[in-house]
Amino acid sequence: MSFYNLILVRHGQSQWNLENRFTGWTDIDLSGRGKEEAQRAGALLKKNNFNFDVACTSVLKRAIRTLWVILDEMDQMWVPVIKSWRLNERHYGSLTGLSKKETIEKYGEKQVQLWRRDYKTSPPLLPVTYQEGKDRCYQNIEKIPVGESLQQTKERVLPFWKDTVTPYLKEGKTVLITAHGNSLRALVKHIENLSDVGITKVEVPTGTPIAYALSKSTLKPERERKIL
Amino acid sequence: MSFYNLILVRHGQSQWNLENRFTGWTDIDLSGRGKEEAQRAGALLKKNNFNFDVACTSVLKRAIRTLWVILDEMDQMWVPVIKSWRLNERHYGSLTGLSKKETIEKYGEKQVQLWRRDYKTSPPLLPVTYQEGKDRCYQNIEKIPVGESLQQTKERVLPFWKDTVTPYLKEGKTVLITAHGNSLRALVKHIENLSDVGITKVEVPTGTPIAYALSKSTLKPERERKIL
Repeated sequence: MSFYNLILVRHGQSQWNLENRFTGWTDIDLSGRGKEEAQRAGALLKKNNFNFDVACTSVLKRAIRTLWVILDEMDQMWVPVIKSWRLNERHYGSLTGLSKKETIEKYGEKQVQLWRRDYKTSPPLLPVTYQEGKDRCYQNIEKIPVGESLQQTKERVLPFWKDTVTPYLKEGKTVLITAHGNSLRALVKHIENLSDVGITKVEVPTGTPIAYALSKSTLKPERERKIL
Repeated sequence: MSFYNLILVRHGQSQWNLENRFTGWTDIDLSGRGKEEAQRAGALLKKNNFNFDVACTSVLKRAIRTLWVILDEMDQMWVPVIKSWRLNERHYGSLTGLSKKETIEKYGEKQVQLWRRDYKTSPPLLPVTYQEGKDRCYQNIEKIPVGESLQQTKERVLPFWKDTVTPYLKEGKTVLITAHGNSLRALVKHIENLSDVGITKVEVPTGTPIAYALSKSTLKPERERKIL
């Protein structure tokens, strides 16, 4: 193999994707259609003969279930899995749980578009006291976010990329990452060296594998990302 | 907590359990009843308020799926999972795939009982050439077994117990292990210091959680294993 193989998959449709709500770190499960999308992703990856050596996912069940369905579909359930909060969706602060329609009615389309798409704009933050009620799965994180811009999301995704993913790639291992719209956009921005404006135009569709062939010397794409 | 918590669960009924065949390392999935048993195990563990910090399983899908169903049922899908071939079922050599009834008709009940229950008796071995066709998930094992006694199973389970499980226990972490009839019997023999004859009388039922409270100083049971 003259390059490294990396596959990114955004989780299938969740119940709150369906209801068009800001989800962030809320642990919402896949919808029925989301499970079908995950199965389709697994079937596509199988047809393309990907043999994974390791898989990474977030600690949110919509991403974990997407991974489980893919590994099951590919008959690769034995593949080691690493779960990290660093791959979680962008934290949407106090927008979490709101419907996008209602938010637009309240704040106007332009503001909501900034919150959703601008690289450096944070959503309205949750009160700091929010951190006190953190779930058991975040017990080892000193401070969980109270709202993140995409830039802040990228800052906490990158240590996982550098410390966990790239060592596997450099061993020649084929890596699968199932995660979220914005944690994956953060990765795409880094991998492709996109500008702050460039990344605003990148949309990662649910349940659709993105294949990278990465240079062995630079870990940068040898060709354009391939949507399977 | 004045002791360490360890839970063992044998996978739910598999298709070959149902057909009463020697399964060993063949990667047979759960039956419908097996999935229900796993759900029941998860519900029981939830009712007993177990909060797992880490889970360990084999690389065989009947054990992995049992774990997935349990974690899903308990809403603890985020728990880190370690998969190891060392937790695989005992390798049944050339008996693998044979029905127990046919094997008794061919070799007699006494011989089959020895193969199944005696601590030191190995099954008839597969030819060494069997190792050449090993699956991708065993690529890092120099020689995969061609047939094991329970004693040999214990010998390859114990390094996992010592190097992976006990460090977690000593950190005070609650550990769940979903594995197989004989890899779990190997663990039970070690944990309870059972004799070679003593272990022949221990049966681990499918899909039934076994809870240990282990001494913090000796890692030996503080009271009898509790069947949930």
